[in-house]
Amino acid sequence: MNEHEFSKKTIEILREIRKQQPLIHHITNFVVMNSTANVTLAIGASPIMAHAHEEMEAMSAFTSALNLNIGTLTPYWVDSMLMAGKAAGERGIPIILDPVGSGATPLRTEAAKKILAEVPVTVIRGNASEVMSLFTHKEEIKIRGVDSLETVDAVRDGAHRLAKELKKVIAVTGEVDFITNGEKAIEVHNGHPMFGRVTGTGCAATTAISCFCAVEPDLLVATACALGYYGLAGEEAARVSNGPGGFQVALYDALYNLSEETMMERLRIKPVK
Amino acid sequence: MNEHEFSKKTIEILREIRKQQPLIHHITNFVVMNSTANVTLAIGASPIMAHAHEEMEAMSAFTSALNLNIGTLTPYWVDSMLMAGKAAGERGIPIILDPVGSGATPLRTEAAKKILAEVPVTVIRGNASEVMSLFTHKEEIKIRGVDSLETVDAVRDGAHRLAKELKKVIAVTGEVDFITNGEKAIEVHNGHPMFGRVTGTGCAATTAISCFCAVEPDLLVATACALGYYGLAGEEAARVSNGPGGFQVALYDALYNLSEETMMERLRIKPVK
Amino acid sequence: MNEHEFSKKTIEILREIRKQQPLIHHITNFVVMNSTANVTLAIGASPIMAHAHEEMEAMSAFTSALNLNIGTLTPYWVDSMLMAGKAAGERGIPIILDPVGSGATPLRTEAAKKILAEVPVTVIRGNASEVMSLFTHKEEIKIRGVDSLETVDAVRDGAHRLAKELKKVIAVTGEVDFITNGEKAIEVHNGHPMFGRVTGTGCAATTAISCFCAVEPDLLVATACALGYYGLAGEEAARVSNGPGGFQVALYDALYNLSEETMMERLRIKPVK
Repeated sequence: MNEHEFSKKTIEILREIRKQQPLIHHITNFVVMNSTANVTLAIGASPIMAHAHEEMEAMSAFTSALNLNIGTLTPYWVDSMLMAGKAAGERGIPIILDPVGSGATPLRTEAAKKILAEVPVTVIRGNASEVMSLFTHKEEIKIRGVDSLETVDAVRDGAHRLAKELKKVIAVTGEVDFITNGEKAIEVHNGHPMFGRVTGTGCAATTAISCFCAVEPDLLVATACALGYYGLAGEEAARVSNGPGGFQVALYDALYNLSEETMMERLRIKPVK
Repeated sequence: MNEHEFSKKTIEILREIRKQQPLIHHITNFVVMNSTANVTLAIGASPIMAHAHEEMEAMSAFTSALNLNIGTLTPYWVDSMLMAGKAAGERGIPIILDPVGSGATPLRTEAAKKILAEVPVTVIRGNASEVMSLFTHKEEIKIRGVDSLETVDAVRDGAHRLAKELKKVIAVTGEVDFITNGEKAIEVHNGHPMFGRVTGTGCAATTAISCFCAVEPDLLVATACALGYYGLAGEEAARVSNGPGGFQVALYDALYNLSEETMMERLRIKPVK
Repeated sequence: MNEHEFSKKTIEILREIRKQQPLIHHITNFVVMNSTANVTLAIGASPIMAHAHEEMEAMSAFTSALNLNIGTLTPYWVDSMLMAGKAAGERGIPIILDPVGSGATPLRTEAAKKILAEVPVTVIRGNASEVMSLFTHKEEIKIRGVDSLETVDAVRDGAHRLAKELKKVIAVTGEVDFITNGEKAIEVHNGHPMFGRVTGTGCAATTAISCFCAVEPDLLVATACALGYYGLAGEEAARVSNGPGGFQVALYDALYNLSEETMMERLRIKPVK
């Protein structure tokens, strides 16, 4: 696919989301439960937040994607993710993992690795440091809390190899996003620095991916299109706002209102040669 | 009461809330804790969110309504609701139940039924599928996650019978809201489709009911007036906003600013013959 | 320092925050996790929310302040605070305590006192009733949920004595804020009544203090400057908004955008003779 075709595909997937209104099961952190639910709704899908062990299996009967996020986690929540992940795996529901803070503390790194070992995750989305923590020793990672100190460029090769080895899609987000399945790779040049001044915007990027993967079987393409669309909504939000408060409000509005014309003109999703 | 009298009553209750500033104890889900607290404040009451077993009884000493919401629940939280509910019941504090997702999973349905069996709930507010789950077999309910696939019309008779049997007020919300105590019934024609694109707006409708029931002893009237006022605030928010982000911000502002003149003109609360 | 010097100091600390981007570890309540994270980012620092016992010690290795808040607490969370507090204390990281609702229920009061007994807290920020609960008998406190029924004036002397006895900075916030370390005292006259109509704005004031204390060793001065800056952002937000929804959005924007010129002109931080 070339850039023009990626733009058309993004529009096509969005139309499908709004037609199907797929349910996206989130097991996510306390900070972003409200904002990621709102992003899901603004995109046109429907969120369900649930983590009780008693209903993890039941959820897989009527949901179309499973979004796992390890922020603010405790062991109980890791178990919720394992239970929901196994049930989703058996039904072939796409599972999207956001390894928030992996590399920063052993609890986070081990949780991310345990989920990857026991659950058939299909897509991973993280910043450069988080993704690096999945394929290297902790001592080598530069991370500060949940903020990456690595650049996307520094982890491209490692992410590509890891994607090939694990047979998953990996998205490393930053100034330019890099998406790979170990065979092919895509770059997304949409985005805006103001994302960094609002909490949970990385988690919400993962939510966008989950919505797109719920209706599009080609998960590499779905992930790239989701990040292009989400990044472009951020560009639009920055244009009409004046600070991080207004930016977040305008982001929801842009995700809801972005016209197909704007997407054809301004999406920047490109195959990597 | 006729439509005109309902409008006047709504204004009267609101004045009373702003005079008394009643404390509303919420045991609610993680997604909406912030937004329902803000709705409580915008209306003029004061929220207290607490779920620790150690303080459930203590809370009933200084609160004027108890709002129970079963979203993102686990067994610990169900026990919190039972403890707080019993203490509130002993003191005659109105208890308002939002059975979020009842009918979708056994955990939710059973939690809702257990609370109804053990706690003197006074008002139930849910969408059509959630309310139907309380009076029929699970297999018969069409629900998808927390989204109703039933219409309000389809459950009117069942809700009316259930209200009569349980001696409670039941509010079924949707395009038109239906409120019944098993004897009399009221319809509310205020509202806006944009509520469906913002998370937790159903939960916040229940919060509005809790604020109104905290100061008005006629709970059927209080519930209908709360839903009219809340729906009208949504109409006003939609008028001045341009998407779900702006809508939510404008909703808080409208709940805070709605003039008595606007309420007299545009509230649509009607007795059902 | 005189008023002019406090304004200059506030600007200097803010510049330092934006240069260092210190990580602020929050163990805080569910209602305000999102909003306090956003306040942290708007100020220019970086938030990390975490409460799992397994990572409390690890957090102290890379964070610059620890923000403890006892809203929506359960015993598990109190233990998280004790663990994180001890680790932070050993490394000399400033610890800022927000005793939300202390005085309202025994659980809250005892939790606040236990944390103060076992953790080297450096700054306490609360409303008048919450602060009074720390130095008097429960029976004597007028508090309603998390709302103070005491005035700042009524607790000035008590707060001053307590600060001297505990060797801590104590900030009592209200219409005028009173900050004392038992030796010197400062008043902050910035602020706006609309803070009272948005949930978590007291918790976010504590977050502002944590950001300032992360880079400024004089904690009395850091606390006063943080409250001045935060209060002035609220004045600015009220000027450009029209209700509590718009106020919150504009508050984030003002925290992000407040110019040094505006601060020099309008900050009202004054030494108490």
